[in-house]
Amino acid sequence: MKKFMDENFLLETEMAQRLYHDHAAKMPIFDYHCHLIPQEIAADKRFTTITDAWLGGDHYKWRQMRWTGIDESLITGKDADPYKKFYAWAETMENLIGNPLYHWTHLELQRYFNITDVFSRKTAEKIYKEANEKFQNDPDLSVFGIMKKFNVYAVGTTDDPADDLEFHKIIKKEGKCPAKVLPSYRPDKAINIDKADYASYIEKLSQVSGISISGVEDVLKALIIRLDYFKEAGCRASDHALMTCPHTFWSTEDVDKVFKKKMKGSELTDTEIDAYRTYILFNLAKAYNERNIAMQLHFAAIRDNNKKAFDLLGADTGFDASYDESLAKGISVFFSALSESDSIPKTILYSLNPKDYYSIMTLIGCYEGKTPARVQMGSAWWFCDHKDGMEEQLKVFANLGTLPRFVGMLTDSRSFLSYPRHEYFRRILSNVIGGWAESGLVPYDEEYLGRIVEDISFNNAKNYFED
Amino acid sequence: MKKFMDENFLLETEMAQRLYHDHAAKMPIFDYHCHLIPQEIAADKRFTTITDAWLGGDHYKWRQMRWTGIDESLITGKDADPYKKFYAWAETMENLIGNPLYHWTHLELQRYFNITDVFSRKTAEKIYKEANEKFQNDPDLSVFGIMKKFNVYAVGTTDDPADDLEFHKIIKKEGKCPAKVLPSYRPDKAINIDKADYASYIEKLSQVSGISISGVEDVLKALIIRLDYFKEAGCRASDHALMTCPHTFWSTEDVDKVFKKKMKGSELTDTEIDAYRTYILFNLAKAYNERNIAMQLHFAAIRDNNKKAFDLLGADTGFDASYDESLAKGISVFFSALSESDSIPKTILYSLNPKDYYSIMTLIGCYEGKTPARVQMGSAWWFCDHKDGMEEQLKVFANLGTLPRFVGMLTDSRSFLSYPRHEYFRRILSNVIGGWAESGLVPYDEEYLGRIVEDISFNNAKNYFED
Amino acid sequence: MKKFMDENFLLETEMAQRLYHDHAAKMPIFDYHCHLIPQEIAADKRFTTITDAWLGGDHYKWRQMRWTGIDESLITGKDADPYKKFYAWAETMENLIGNPLYHWTHLELQRYFNITDVFSRKTAEKIYKEANEKFQNDPDLSVFGIMKKFNVYAVGTTDDPADDLEFHKIIKKEGKCPAKVLPSYRPDKAINIDKADYASYIEKLSQVSGISISGVEDVLKALIIRLDYFKEAGCRASDHALMTCPHTFWSTEDVDKVFKKKMKGSELTDTEIDAYRTYILFNLAKAYNERNIAMQLHFAAIRDNNKKAFDLLGADTGFDASYDESLAKGISVFFSALSESDSIPKTILYSLNPKDYYSIMTLIGCYEGKTPARVQMGSAWWFCDHKDGMEEQLKVFANLGTLPRFVGMLTDSRSFLSYPRHEYFRRILSNVIGGWAESGLVPYDEEYLGRIVEDISFNNAKNYFED
Repeated sequence: MKKFMDENFLLETEMAQRLYHDHAAKMPIFDYHCHLIPQEIAADKRFTTITDAWLGGDHYKWRQMRWTGIDESLITGKDADPYKKFYAWAETMENLIGNPLYHWTHLELQRYFNITDVFSRKTAEKIYKEANEKFQNDPDLSVFGIMKKFNVYAVGTTDDPADDLEFHKIIKKEGKCPAKVLPSYRPDKAINIDKADYASYIEKLSQVSGISISGVEDVLKALIIRLDYFKEAGCRASDHALMTCPHTFWSTEDVDKVFKKKMKGSELTDTEIDAYRTYILFNLAKAYNERNIAMQLHFAAIRDNNKKAFDLLGADTGFDASYDESLAKGISVFFSALSESDSIPKTILYSLNPKDYYSIMTLIGCYEGKTPARVQMGSAWWFCDHKDGMEEQLKVFANLGTLPRFVGMLTDSRSFLSYPRHEYFRRILSNVIGGWAESGLVPYDEEYLGRIVEDISFNNAKNYFED
Repeated sequence: MKKFMDENFLLETEMAQRLYHDHAAKMPIFDYHCHLIPQEIAADKRFTTITDAWLGGDHYKWRQMRWTGIDESLITGKDADPYKKFYAWAETMENLIGNPLYHWTHLELQRYFNITDVFSRKTAEKIYKEANEKFQNDPDLSVFGIMKKFNVYAVGTTDDPADDLEFHKIIKKEGKCPAKVLPSYRPDKAINIDKADYASYIEKLSQVSGISISGVEDVLKALIIRLDYFKEAGCRASDHALMTCPHTFWSTEDVDKVFKKKMKGSELTDTEIDAYRTYILFNLAKAYNERNIAMQLHFAAIRDNNKKAFDLLGADTGFDASYDESLAKGISVFFSALSESDSIPKTILYSLNPKDYYSIMTLIGCYEGKTPARVQMGSAWWFCDHKDGMEEQLKVFANLGTLPRFVGMLTDSRSFLSYPRHEYFRRILSNVIGGWAESGLVPYDEEYLGRIVEDISFNNAKNYFED
Repeated sequence: MKKFMDENFLLETEMAQRLYHDHAAKMPIFDYHCHLIPQEIAADKRFTTITDAWLGGDHYKWRQMRWTGIDESLITGKDADPYKKFYAWAETMENLIGNPLYHWTHLELQRYFNITDVFSRKTAEKIYKEANEKFQNDPDLSVFGIMKKFNVYAVGTTDDPADDLEFHKIIKKEGKCPAKVLPSYRPDKAINIDKADYASYIEKLSQVSGISISGVEDVLKALIIRLDYFKEAGCRASDHALMTCPHTFWSTEDVDKVFKKKMKGSELTDTEIDAYRTYILFNLAKAYNERNIAMQLHFAAIRDNNKKAFDLLGADTGFDASYDESLAKGISVFFSALSESDSIPKTILYSLNPKDYYSIMTLIGCYEGKTPARVQMGSAWWFCDHKDGMEEQLKVFANLGTLPRFVGMLTDSRSFLSYPRHEYFRRILSNVIGGWAESGLVPYDEEYLGRIVEDISFNNAKNYFED
């Protein structure tokens, strides 16, 4: 029997322990895809309560609280008593064994607050007091303090092309943030021509880019002006949320008609929407390639599945799910076309449904070359981001590709308290590779395996995004 | 080396053993979804031979016998010698290592007949004699005896809305059955407008409900009259067999045209069929919600895949399979609409294809609230109902939801000999959770974990269906 | 800690070790599906260098080399220095921990060359010299020597119906090859009516069969003449590469129109293509059944996903992937029709995507009967052919079918150095079954389990194909 979440948490063999403690643990963090708010970084924000820090914006937790039957007022309610919310989260925690939030929460208590209690209603009051006190007094618990303590080398935020990146500039100028803060280019609003707010977004894009937009080529021009603006501000990666991969190649002329039809307020067909998306994404991919910016495509999230909740609470509040349509054909058509024009950018493909891993990993292999593992399958994402999911992703990656080249973990998090999720990933990674060594499946060679663990923990991401 | 199927069968750690023996084993059984025949319960049936009990109606076994090359006359033949059939099953058994039937069969021999031999052609004769003798003499081996011995608290049968529930009434009135026998409302025939027998079924429904059915609203009216009749008789749950989730919302007027078209004998299009199904299922879901009846949707069975066998043997004879179409969009549209009208009933979604687990579990989370785990993903079902399948279902449930709220196991069985499958499930459950404790992934706290195991074994189902 | 790939490689329990060493290891090899070149067999070919043997035609390796960023000239280049290529492969190897190529490569070094070093850039030069010397001097390293050493009973090559099987005849006539060399009938070119080279292929087929082909019935006639020719030459199996299962049943007249439309050079619709495919495959299936020839259907490969690479390097050069469309409906419709006409041949269904295993295994069970496990799910194939993939395939096979009847492993390989992959499979098989015994899940009965392992290793395939 192993103690609950002790120093060898998740490390089942001696080699796993050595790989983690002597190799993975010391590496800096390159959190290349997250949703931190630049303004909060610039301000070196301090949270006032653990309730605010944990429950202020984390829809992973909100979702589980609903599952436990907690009243919505204690979940997203603005006026609820902070301790009552915290207590409701403690009750929820008791029902989360086997869920990654159980481990993340306890890791956060241990690493940020030095609290090793099991979190439950019994310990809620004690923990609430201790954590809040630390938030007020511990110098490590400001944003900069946290980044320093966790050895954060860089974070990649997620930003709209129309954003002026004001806070990125301030952070850079002031030079106090211990980590690089890199903007990521996420033009979802320019691609989602089916959405109601598309026309107003185009107007905004026009203003900020200085391009008068009357056709689809203008949209692209404006987007690329902004891309260069982002690049100037340190952008190394873009990001797209897509259910499946667009692959309807129409002439610019025909796509232009789609654009104009939309701007007149008409409904578009599914094929027209896909043709527009294909046009924009394809040309952006080329632009990414020319500028050495990595392209991240996040597939298979079906969002806002509860209309009533959406009307009440808006997007990103815990009502999204794993989609399950076929992906392979779209990816094949899209990337084959990119390959023909010799324009495949550095690319990371993610899916929110593990059933896609085989198709993604095998398709990726059709577009490699030039630099090692130029096209990658991203880390187990969102609903897949747990011990079982990470092990599955790592094993598919290894079985079908070249694991030592994997760019590794990102938090995708909105929270400054999420850095232990890199530790979580590294422990699981060390355990998988250490287990192979212990079973004689790979050489029992700590130097060799240690380097691989170090690379996946940090070096690969650094080299991939900063080359 | 562990002895074959001894008292610690499937229990790999000390905590697993304690969780099973001291917590799970003592809990009553709430077998909330099965296919027992009420008439046989009312009659306190005794089987005359083990052949009759095992091979009389069990298409799981028939299917495996065909795989072994057994002649159909020894599988479903009416005139074959009972011992020859039994011997053919013994031969089949020798080829079933790694198959759940191997464990189920040996558990049944141990628990019902106190026989610990390995079942094969070598032991067939001995076992045949011993088992048959017990069937004749052992008071535990009538239906009531079995239910008492296995501590069965309640069973949920599967009944057509047109059924008069005569035997349910008799059972209730006589008061001798040690378990509650609850009817479940399964209106597949009213929903499957594409089937040849639809019109004749509507006539039957009209008669039994007293509603003259000339339009789709009448169908609904008749169905709800029967639902109230079922509710009166103790019904707590409904059940639907669906390949995918209907989600074509048409006006009542348009659906009515579909109904009338069908009644005139015309062929319907796929969209018309889905619109009719959506209309009926949506309105039934609302009615379930109003009456606090749980809705079970069983997705992804593709049935009767062998026309020749179907013509010869009929439905439910071992010619069904796991379907593989996408489910997510349909579920999202259907439940979002239910949510908008604030009418989501208690719901359990099952899929016959594990590839759907991620979509189902993440979609479920979009409709939680009110009461804990109101919307659930059902236990590993049918072809998924084995050690590997249960572990997979439990882990996805835990990773994406709140495992301690899971309503747990049901047999889905036609046999009175299936109760050890609850034991099988509980051992696997105890082993998963005990394994987590042993590895330090959850607190090593028997009281806490024991309560969770007890809840999933029985309390959750009782609370869920009887609240 | 276990030594790297020692004699108990992959064998984690004592029973696993006994099952492998005392039962599996001694069985001959029936490699019923591979891509060896008959001409090379007939010539008792000897490789001149390990570079030639390993990298001459193996797109599994090429793909991984691209992933490592190796320049294409060192992968498929014709003029590159053999040692430089070999060294590039050594570099690639360092990045392949967790990949089956890591194990295959080291098994080949151990079994063919008696080299137990870990292969890397450090050992590359030494290994290159040793291996090349053995290729020149070791009598075991000609094709016949290899077949004798590895106890190869038979191999099934893959041949086009238009092939004259010249080298099969020579091999038979000369009688020196220690293994049977059986042609397999693979009429992909006759079925792929959508391809550009269809018309020219039909002309070739016409010439070789002596049938003047002016309609679809002539195509079939010609194909069956060739099938009889293959049967005469020892053919026991056919093989088809299909993305999904054709299931559009049209009248012969209508299919004939499709054929004529194509021959006039018109584009066909997807439905027309599927109708043609269905017609040919259905009638060939009947012909296979009449001639007792097994039908292999390989589903779910999406090929040539990189147009630029295809134009440069052609097919089968490492640019294929796992497809992900739904399979179940097609299989159900197609095989139900075959069943109605009582014409289901011995059939093995493979999928390149593990998400299909549940549908395939459950559908298979709908068409069993006559002889044991007449319809099978094939061994983990291509991208699935690794430890994790084999274990998954074996467990799904066992959970849903009758594992002891499994026809087992084939290499699907283009290389004479691939026979250790049978050893790899047998170790994994022994480990799975041995593990069950060790955990008390099956009887701890070496005689019983040993026979099962022997059957799956060899006897089942022999009985299945040669009955």
